[in-house]
Amino acid sequence: MSAVGHVRYSTTGETILRNVQPLFAELDGGGFAIGHNGNLTNGLTLRRQLVRDGAMMQSTTDTEVILHLVARAKRNRFIDRFIEGLRALEGAYAFVGLTNKKLIGARDPFGIRPLVMGKLDGCPILASETCALDIIGAKYVRDVENGEVVVFDEEGMQPYKPFPPTAPRPCVFEYIYFARPDSIVGGRPVYDVRKTMGGELAREAPATADVVVPVPDSGVPAAIGYAQASGIPYELGIIRNHYVGRTFIEPTQHIRQLGVRLKHSANRAVVNGKRIVLVDDSIVRGTTSVKIVQMLREAGAREVHMRIASPPITHSDYYGIDTPERDKLLAATHDLEGMRAFIGADSLAFLSVDGIYRAMGYEQRDPARPQFTDHCFTGDYPTALTDRSAQETPPRQLSLLAEAS
Amino acid sequence: MSAVGHVRYSTTGETILRNVQPLFAELDGGGFAIGHNGNLTNGLTLRRQLVRDGAMMQSTTDTEVILHLVARAKRNRFIDRFIEGLRALEGAYAFVGLTNKKLIGARDPFGIRPLVMGKLDGCPILASETCALDIIGAKYVRDVENGEVVVFDEEGMQPYKPFPPTAPRPCVFEYIYFARPDSIVGGRPVYDVRKTMGGELAREAPATADVVVPVPDSGVPAAIGYAQASGIPYELGIIRNHYVGRTFIEPTQHIRQLGVRLKHSANRAVVNGKRIVLVDDSIVRGTTSVKIVQMLREAGAREVHMRIASPPITHSDYYGIDTPERDKLLAATHDLEGMRAFIGADSLAFLSVDGIYRAMGYEQRDPARPQFTDHCFTGDYPTALTDRSAQETPPRQLSLLAEAS
Amino acid sequence: MSAVGHVRYSTTGETILRNVQPLFAELDGGGFAIGHNGNLTNGLTLRRQLVRDGAMMQSTTDTEVILHLVARAKRNRFIDRFIEGLRALEGAYAFVGLTNKKLIGARDPFGIRPLVMGKLDGCPILASETCALDIIGAKYVRDVENGEVVVFDEEGMQPYKPFPPTAPRPCVFEYIYFARPDSIVGGRPVYDVRKTMGGELAREAPATADVVVPVPDSGVPAAIGYAQASGIPYELGIIRNHYVGRTFIEPTQHIRQLGVRLKHSANRAVVNGKRIVLVDDSIVRGTTSVKIVQMLREAGAREVHMRIASPPITHSDYYGIDTPERDKLLAATHDLEGMRAFIGADSLAFLSVDGIYRAMGYEQRDPARPQFTDHCFTGDYPTALTDRSAQETPPRQLSLLAEAS
Amino acid sequence: MSAVGHVRYSTTGETILRNVQPLFAELDGGGFAIGHNGNLTNGLTLRRQLVRDGAMMQSTTDTEVILHLVARAKRNRFIDRFIEGLRALEGAYAFVGLTNKKLIGARDPFGIRPLVMGKLDGCPILASETCALDIIGAKYVRDVENGEVVVFDEEGMQPYKPFPPTAPRPCVFEYIYFARPDSIVGGRPVYDVRKTMGGELAREAPATADVVVPVPDSGVPAAIGYAQASGIPYELGIIRNHYVGRTFIEPTQHIRQLGVRLKHSANRAVVNGKRIVLVDDSIVRGTTSVKIVQMLREAGAREVHMRIASPPITHSDYYGIDTPERDKLLAATHDLEGMRAFIGADSLAFLSVDGIYRAMGYEQRDPARPQFTDHCFTGDYPTALTDRSAQETPPRQLSLLAEAS
Repeated sequence: MSAVGHVRYSTTGETILRNVQPLFAELDGGGFAIGHNGNLTNGLTLRRQLVRDGAMMQSTTDTEVILHLVARAKRNRFIDRFIEGLRALEGAYAFVGLTNKKLIGARDPFGIRPLVMGKLDGCPILASETCALDIIGAKYVRDVENGEVVVFDEEGMQPYKPFPPTAPRPCVFEYIYFARPDSIVGGRPVYDVRKTMGGELAREAPATADVVVPVPDSGVPAAIGYAQASGIPYELGIIRNHYVGRTFIEPTQHIRQLGVRLKHSANRAVVNGKRIVLVDDSIVRGTTSVKIVQMLREAGAREVHMRIASPPITHSDYYGIDTPERDKLLAATHDLEGMRAFIGADSLAFLSVDGIYRAMGYEQRDPARPQFTDHCFTGDYPTALTDRSAQETPPRQLSLLAEAS
Repeated sequence: MSAVGHVRYSTTGETILRNVQPLFAELDGGGFAIGHNGNLTNGLTLRRQLVRDGAMMQSTTDTEVILHLVARAKRNRFIDRFIEGLRALEGAYAFVGLTNKKLIGARDPFGIRPLVMGKLDGCPILASETCALDIIGAKYVRDVENGEVVVFDEEGMQPYKPFPPTAPRPCVFEYIYFARPDSIVGGRPVYDVRKTMGGELAREAPATADVVVPVPDSGVPAAIGYAQASGIPYELGIIRNHYVGRTFIEPTQHIRQLGVRLKHSANRAVVNGKRIVLVDDSIVRGTTSVKIVQMLREAGAREVHMRIASPPITHSDYYGIDTPERDKLLAATHDLEGMRAFIGADSLAFLSVDGIYRAMGYEQRDPARPQFTDHCFTGDYPTALTDRSAQETPPRQLSLLAEAS
Repeated sequence: MSAVGHVRYSTTGETILRNVQPLFAELDGGGFAIGHNGNLTNGLTLRRQLVRDGAMMQSTTDTEVILHLVARAKRNRFIDRFIEGLRALEGAYAFVGLTNKKLIGARDPFGIRPLVMGKLDGCPILASETCALDIIGAKYVRDVENGEVVVFDEEGMQPYKPFPPTAPRPCVFEYIYFARPDSIVGGRPVYDVRKTMGGELAREAPATADVVVPVPDSGVPAAIGYAQASGIPYELGIIRNHYVGRTFIEPTQHIRQLGVRLKHSANRAVVNGKRIVLVDDSIVRGTTSVKIVQMLREAGAREVHMRIASPPITHSDYYGIDTPERDKLLAATHDLEGMRAFIGADSLAFLSVDGIYRAMGYEQRDPARPQFTDHCFTGDYPTALTDRSAQETPPRQLSLLAEAS
Repeated sequence: MSAVGHVRYSTTGETILRNVQPLFAELDGGGFAIGHNGNLTNGLTLRRQLVRDGAMMQSTTDTEVILHLVARAKRNRFIDRFIEGLRALEGAYAFVGLTNKKLIGARDPFGIRPLVMGKLDGCPILASETCALDIIGAKYVRDVENGEVVVFDEEGMQPYKPFPPTAPRPCVFEYIYFARPDSIVGGRPVYDVRKTMGGELAREAPATADVVVPVPDSGVPAAIGYAQASGIPYELGIIRNHYVGRTFIEPTQHIRQLGVRLKHSANRAVVNGKRIVLVDDSIVRGTTSVKIVQMLREAGAREVHMRIASPPITHSDYYGIDTPERDKLLAATHDLEGMRAFIGADSLAFLSVDGIYRAMGYEQRDPARPQFTDHCFTGDYPTALTDRSAQETPPRQLSLLAEAS
């Protein structure tokens, strides 16, 4: 028996289910189910062409586009139809497909989104992350490579390489935020990478403080790394409320109308009277950071030095990370001092782009051949962006540390 | 506007909702809603008497008993009827009641379960824990005292002391496990108490190891305390799966039938090849500990030294903590070496009862006048146990550390 | 195995389920479930007394009152407690109760509401109507008598007569409207009685017309009787929409806002150009009659002569028939000509009270000892009406036929 | 505002909702919703072709086929695309479609299924039956003709005749069973037609009996016609249980396991000791008739003469009437005497095919040019049956009356 499950985890504990996956179609030749991680950058364009050609769309997902392309492909073998469909796509994807007889995996030419192969009791497994293999007790076999299509059937596994060879550029955000800390992505343990980023950050942007406090849960590994590198004690200064369960949220309208900050609570015993290094993995809009800093101050924090274990996000993502439009990105609209003032911290510092690459084992970023998809920090998108008029302006050079004067 | 919500949190993130609270009754004189935290030890006995006297029970909760007692009390003032009802009760309770005009709080004579008063925009709030006040932005006023009944109405707060004065004996398990780490219980920050317990444990039961790993989330504060006291680095060697969300659990029957350990995953990058101090807050049945130790070994742990930041639980609780019958308690049926062997750790150690009292600021436990309800460790129940034939045998004297030979 | 089902049918096809029956209580001595047909006239008064005495009410039904009375009765045998409860009741009731071991039936002293005993495969059955016995294939045994309590257990049936003997006065409305036409109530086939009433009506109030048309389904048997007695052909001039199903009602808001008369449609093929005798069983508010007459006229009816197979309803019912307050009763506020004008018929006639008694086999109503509960037409209530201040004025003497001039 | 509702009623009171209608598609050029009454006889064939051409089917209904055909049609105007889709269809259909700007109706070339145009407050309405117009207060305008497509938009109504002219052949079953009695189908009042069929039946197959009893509700108009033509009194000898409501059916498992005949009850007062003419509209499988005859006998009927107001059904329908396969049709597998014996009646008679045509106003059926689709009785299907291998054998010549010897 085979199955296609589609789950993506993040360290925030929220499952990223953009659509109800997998989608299913009754094709000529049998049923086909498919799950999709990632986003196409020409999905809308393809969709419009297909509708003009008489296709009836059931959903608003770009996953459905690949189904229609496969349904319409004029080839005999199913795998050839599937590959013909893939050739039309642009952007980021990791697909897991299932026919009556075959389990199929496919990863976009740059390998932007991850996909790994595992084995359990002799059955092949495809998953976004190795942690999923661990949970079900499966053995990791290898990553599906960038631009690779793998087909499992009774006769075993058959790999295909339908695209021109390219160097891989996996998304660096998997390491920063997206993947679970116990996953191994591209051969690197995510927890180690995040701790190293925290350590790099401690070296690049030290602070004089009494405690290192993570924004839970996203900032925890980087905060442990910062604490170990700096020698400042690590403490749980913020408690997540979301793990209390939903029931809490619904007592009465009366309580809901109050100025409730439901996601986090300050742990006053840790915070009161202290100088705090507050560590998070990234800043997107900055709105959560504002609330957290204010909450810490209300709980008696003497100083709050915010440290972010990744560079400023200046460009939107179109490959499957749920970032907003550029004008909503704090770092796209504020300089460093502006960000610090907005957030209300006593100081604010980001890890440098080269710091990221150092944490990954390189000396620095090579602009000619960067090893990762890192457009959020650099504006360097690896693929065309057909659906969008690519009007992104080049990134301003930002300084990485601001302090309140 | 007033409201009665009833929520109890635990550091495991599961809300303890034994009954759908609050219960409501239309009494002579108007409606009365009541929520109950704790357990009566004569609830069944009272229930049988009431049914014999013609009461019609709607639920199986012992909360309903107090409603019927109030309904039948022959007094004029509502508060006198409520107090007459309370006098019949035995065991642990924190009640929050609401009539059309009054908000009422009541705590049992020993104050076994907590209850705090807060204020928000001039309105009185009653809650089990201070963290609930923080979340809604209310100000803490004071604890309701043991044996105290407080009544809020338009004219303000009126306290009653209907019972003979007794020294308070709050339940020590609130500090060990039950209360949220950011709550302040009986004037003591729970997070600080737990860290101190972890520090005491490091002194009482040191270990030669590479990393301190908490069982998340229950063991986190004690593990931080252990790590700081011992100088061994604190690392996230175990990742909770439950925060991944429920969706994960349901992919297919196929996957569910596999030997899945869904609650936790080992973080191989931290664990592999390491000597580990594994810290948890307590052991009840021991079944979870068995799985975690085995999981760490499968992930490559070289040694696993289990350290428990509370004494062995040898007696059942009847006051609202969901412990099983005595014969299911690991420490009631095994000696220390037996527990170690059962769990499969290289060594196992518990914090001493005196260690608990030291963490709370006392030199040691005074058997003549213990400051806490601590029967789980000592067999010393503060109240009668009318519903149960109190056949508990006195606790064996257990040693607190066992090592594999 | 025993069971208590509680269903009441009417010829309109709507089940009269005033409450979710049966109610259940865990009494001292075991569970007790009870279903109630009828209405108490002192239910509210008893309820208030019980609440004052500390009873906690779960519902707003007067059925619950008997449960509390039984729960509080100070007798040893269950049947004695049940009878003690019954003695406090006033009004109309047919109870079916069930304990672990006994099936119990009880009918009020006048036998206002019906209750019959049946047998199926040796098991006793209690039902409101004989049609229920027919449907499940049970054999009719006998009616439970007025003021009788019957108890079935392993040793057979034991009858009790706890009340002073009285002549029975069953509710005449069972024959007119309430009971199903295929039931036999008090030994009389309901269908035959209704046809006879229609025949009496044809003799008392003849009409010159082309077709006899029933208001479906309530007027069907009387219309057949009228048609046979008068020789005017019986035709389906009105079609019920309710049997179309609910789906029809929900197409869109747009359609619902139109002046929809959803319950009936005129059958234009029958109605157009005809002089119609329109037969119904009774008139309560008269609002439905207005719509039907207008609908027939719009469908081309030349004349509409409305004939009602029962007398004018001048008094409210408090025994279980869902009549409105007196001032909503058309016959309580209009004289005959006023009613005719209100309804818009060319003529209007009612069956006389004596006509009712003739259809039941008597020569006329004996005001000193009427055989039926007929207060709706006569104002003669057989029981006290404790819950209401009995301010009903004596009925005006109404003429029975009005014609448009 | 416009809307497409899709409801079909039958005199049995059950809405025929084969699919959740209407279906909706987002086409190039805007949304299109469509409801379908009838069945295609090449739906499966078209479906397979479309899937082979890359269409993705969302449902199993043949309605979806027309949506895909329209989506793929290569025309500019929407109406031309719709008509191109229609040209591929074979079988019976009445479509109601809706675009943002147009309301469209279409009827198959033979007009097998009905469709009428109405008007309400100036808005066009399309409905299967005139009774729907009556209920919402709309005015009947005219029938959509066979093979006609009508388009309503802001500029009014535009009719199209895209098919070669053919004489209409509406389905005779609309008159016999399908349409509501108060509808006017093809200019004929359904109630009148059914009564006339009952009258024809009384002349073709008289019976010596005491009462005429309809099988409710389907046999009611024919029974009234039979009674009037024969002079035998019409009586409600059978009561439908279904109008009692669903609650009745569910009391307990105990009762359900009994030999319950839930749909009908005999009215013993009418039936006992009588010779009965039992009238129904048609016999399909005959299983209901068996139960009813047995029920009447158990209620004391002396003789039961079954009279069916249509001919024996010897052929399956493929145009939207839910008949079973041929081998399940009683008249396809039994001769008349066999049917009588199966049903257990004292005599059994059917109306002749010519009797049907007489009731419709013709002298007899003209085999060369029959005015109706009547294959159920004659095997004469007006369209090809592409999806089925048309292996139906010619009908045997059946006699129409059988009597128990």
